[in-house]
Amino acid sequence: MPAQTDLAALLERHLGARKVLSDARSLAHYGRDASTLGPFPPEAVVVPSSAEEVSAVLRLAYEYGFPVTPRGAGTGLTGGALPVRGGVVLSTERMQRIKEIDEEAFVAVVEPGVVTGTLQQVLTERGLFYPPDPASLGTCSIGGNVAHNAGGPRALKYGVTREYVLGLDTVLPDGSRLRSGRRTTKGVVGYDLTGLLVGSEGTLGVTTEVTLRLIPEPKARATLLTIFRTVVDAGRAVTRILQSGFRPCALELVDAPSIDVLHQHGNHTFPPGAGALLLCELDEEHEALGRVLDTCARACEQVGALEQRHSTEAREREALWSARRAVYPTLVKTYPRMRVEDVCVPRTRIADALSRLDELSARYRIPTSTLAHAGDGNLHIGLLRGVEQDREDTEERRMEAMRADLMRTVLSLGGTLAGEHGIGHAKRSFLGWELSPEAIALQRKMKALIDPKNLLNPQKIFTEA
Amino acid sequence: MPAQTDLAALLERHLGARKVLSDARSLAHYGRDASTLGPFPPEAVVVPSSAEEVSAVLRLAYEYGFPVTPRGAGTGLTGGALPVRGGVVLSTERMQRIKEIDEEAFVAVVEPGVVTGTLQQVLTERGLFYPPDPASLGTCSIGGNVAHNAGGPRALKYGVTREYVLGLDTVLPDGSRLRSGRRTTKGVVGYDLTGLLVGSEGTLGVTTEVTLRLIPEPKARATLLTIFRTVVDAGRAVTRILQSGFRPCALELVDAPSIDVLHQHGNHTFPPGAGALLLCELDEEHEALGRVLDTCARACEQVGALEQRHSTEAREREALWSARRAVYPTLVKTYPRMRVEDVCVPRTRIADALSRLDELSARYRIPTSTLAHAGDGNLHIGLLRGVEQDREDTEERRMEAMRADLMRTVLSLGGTLAGEHGIGHAKRSFLGWELSPEAIALQRKMKALIDPKNLLNPQKIFTEA
Repeated sequence: MPAQTDLAALLERHLGARKVLSDARSLAHYGRDASTLGPFPPEAVVVPSSAEEVSAVLRLAYEYGFPVTPRGAGTGLTGGALPVRGGVVLSTERMQRIKEIDEEAFVAVVEPGVVTGTLQQVLTERGLFYPPDPASLGTCSIGGNVAHNAGGPRALKYGVTREYVLGLDTVLPDGSRLRSGRRTTKGVVGYDLTGLLVGSEGTLGVTTEVTLRLIPEPKARATLLTIFRTVVDAGRAVTRILQSGFRPCALELVDAPSIDVLHQHGNHTFPPGAGALLLCELDEEHEALGRVLDTCARACEQVGALEQRHSTEAREREALWSARRAVYPTLVKTYPRMRVEDVCVPRTRIADALSRLDELSARYRIPTSTLAHAGDGNLHIGLLRGVEQDREDTEERRMEAMRADLMRTVLSLGGTLAGEHGIGHAKRSFLGWELSPEAIALQRKMKALIDPKNLLNPQKIFTEA
Repeated sequence: MPAQTDLAALLERHLGARKVLSDARSLAHYGRDASTLGPFPPEAVVVPSSAEEVSAVLRLAYEYGFPVTPRGAGTGLTGGALPVRGGVVLSTERMQRIKEIDEEAFVAVVEPGVVTGTLQQVLTERGLFYPPDPASLGTCSIGGNVAHNAGGPRALKYGVTREYVLGLDTVLPDGSRLRSGRRTTKGVVGYDLTGLLVGSEGTLGVTTEVTLRLIPEPKARATLLTIFRTVVDAGRAVTRILQSGFRPCALELVDAPSIDVLHQHGNHTFPPGAGALLLCELDEEHEALGRVLDTCARACEQVGALEQRHSTEAREREALWSARRAVYPTLVKTYPRMRVEDVCVPRTRIADALSRLDELSARYRIPTSTLAHAGDGNLHIGLLRGVEQDREDTEERRMEAMRADLMRTVLSLGGTLAGEHGIGHAKRSFLGWELSPEAIALQRKMKALIDPKNLLNPQKIFTEA
């Protein structure tokens, strides 16, 4: 591999100086993402603005043998965008064109750097809807969403990114270009390469164009916030609501430690005894909304709601969501070294998982704060480092031991290591706890087939052989 | 490869005589499917009742080098279940256990031979819903649905089989077993092997268990049958309905030649001038049903409906569907050598596609009859062989030329070669018209990676290298 200065110079020679960043500040910035892992500063950063330029970078990488780490908006929480082995970060931030919105066919064609929330705003104005709504939608990009098969609260009713990706343009590790999928909503023409690429965390190719399926924007929405004494009560409410026979858009749970965080560090107050918040988001044809909302409210009352608030009006609904939305920013501000773990359990085991989490928190002396997409059993657990005075390396060891125990717990409950954040760099060592040696061997062979030199996003998903 | 008698004897020795069929009638039966291709009689048929037995068969195949063709219920229309290269047919017909229905978690675990319609009946009784509804649901099997990523009318609102498969147990071509996916609704843990296997037409593995995601059964349904003068009018109605902002469950189109078939050979009568039928199926919360039905009806009226009938009552709704349902059986009875082509175009191009089809029909002197999942742009075109007196081989040549022209037409309209029936044996030669050489090369490499001896369902999807 060329030395550091050579790499930037090499890229500048082929792509022009405006497409390459190699100042110290850029290298520091792209050496981090939202995961708190690293820093892993790259040797150079390239910001292509076309598929041709992406292809040129990957061809050079294959010729000269340097690693390339694709990066969307850097909002990932498992270190998927970190250049762990150095080399080049390839950021899609300058590929932000919405190329086409076909209102009759319900299709959008976008570049990977398009910010998810921006696309959604543009679509909403036309009565169209792209449902996936990761918490970072104000900053994260469609390309990153595709790489991690991102979800969000609305995945409960509408599914995850994969369900909306009809086709992809991808640059493969050797620089060749692959068109997969189609524009029609259905199709079975050979193996589903599009489905394979979605969720492959930038290890098989760099997305350069995404064809998305859209649906009509739901017309009427309601939000119901219920305060419970315990997560066990809230979990019972989730089961009851889902068995009522309609399909809520989202069921979001905020646990007791998160409520404490909001009390101590935020502007929200809840009644004494509040041990869990459940946000129920409904979108229905307007005639049905009132009755469905009533049914939800009653289901919550029957298992012992402490207090309820609800609205069908946009501004008031946003206020009901504000506590849920405030948790993560408040945590990040208060505990900047917080680590977020994304796991999934069968939705009926959420209360069990949280009770086991309390035990782990006590044993390892690391407080936690959990937000859950409860309808999907998908928990986002903040491990609040820096609370207890301790030597950092000792705390690090405790946290790693706790993470391992958490993963074992999740798997023992019939769950999965990652709901929507992927494996990235952070969870590679756990992969074999969930997948069989055969499944991992097959996946490694597929990686080797497509990226024989192991240069595209190395040290992600898999540990080194 | 062992000679014919050896193969049956070999299997009997390892699996017992009860698991092997080699009488002439069985060999004839399993040499055909619903595609009219063949016959391709196998040398033996094996009917395993467990994953262990499936694994034993594939291990023997890899040791002795004989081809194995997996078969669900034989309802496929592209010859996917035909043992084109001889060898053994592996039928999953004795693997029909519904192993588990978890009503709280909305999950079912089934063996591949379970009949789709049977599962749906069992689920309906518990208020649960598994949406995919291929026309053959009374006889087709979940395993076959997984192999072809089956859809059906309801795919418009609810998506295809892939959207409901959470996890799979698969026996790989060498006899090894692979567990992929999970029981939770979300998960991003390594590459999506489950998604890759769904739609791979039995060329990568034999499914031995399927974990399915379920949703609540919709409560209120309405059916609206509108008769139009032309498919152009019906196509305009489809666009209008979909732009009304709600999501119909199904939009089914019956074209003029199909109406003629029903007039001539069936028990249905339609008013003079009827040139297209559009069935609109709605499922909504019951408060919204009336208004949504009105909106649909009005959309159809505005583009010039000739006549409308509708109902929200189960028996009457079934009567409205009866014309649509009668087309295929009537065609099969009247034209036993009919060939069905499944293609997909952007939904706004359906009328264009049908107009081009009329030209082809005239040019090649082969009448057609088309049913469409119009909301998805998915056309099922019956090529009615045997109408015009001609030497059979000449007609065969005309039909093949017409099929090729049809595929070119579909692709020129921005469509795809196969919406939900797969490529199978029938459409392999067209694959390169839609997919790039790079995409086909990559898929072939994946096939070779998983099935290096090319023994599992050979001569499907791909032509011989």
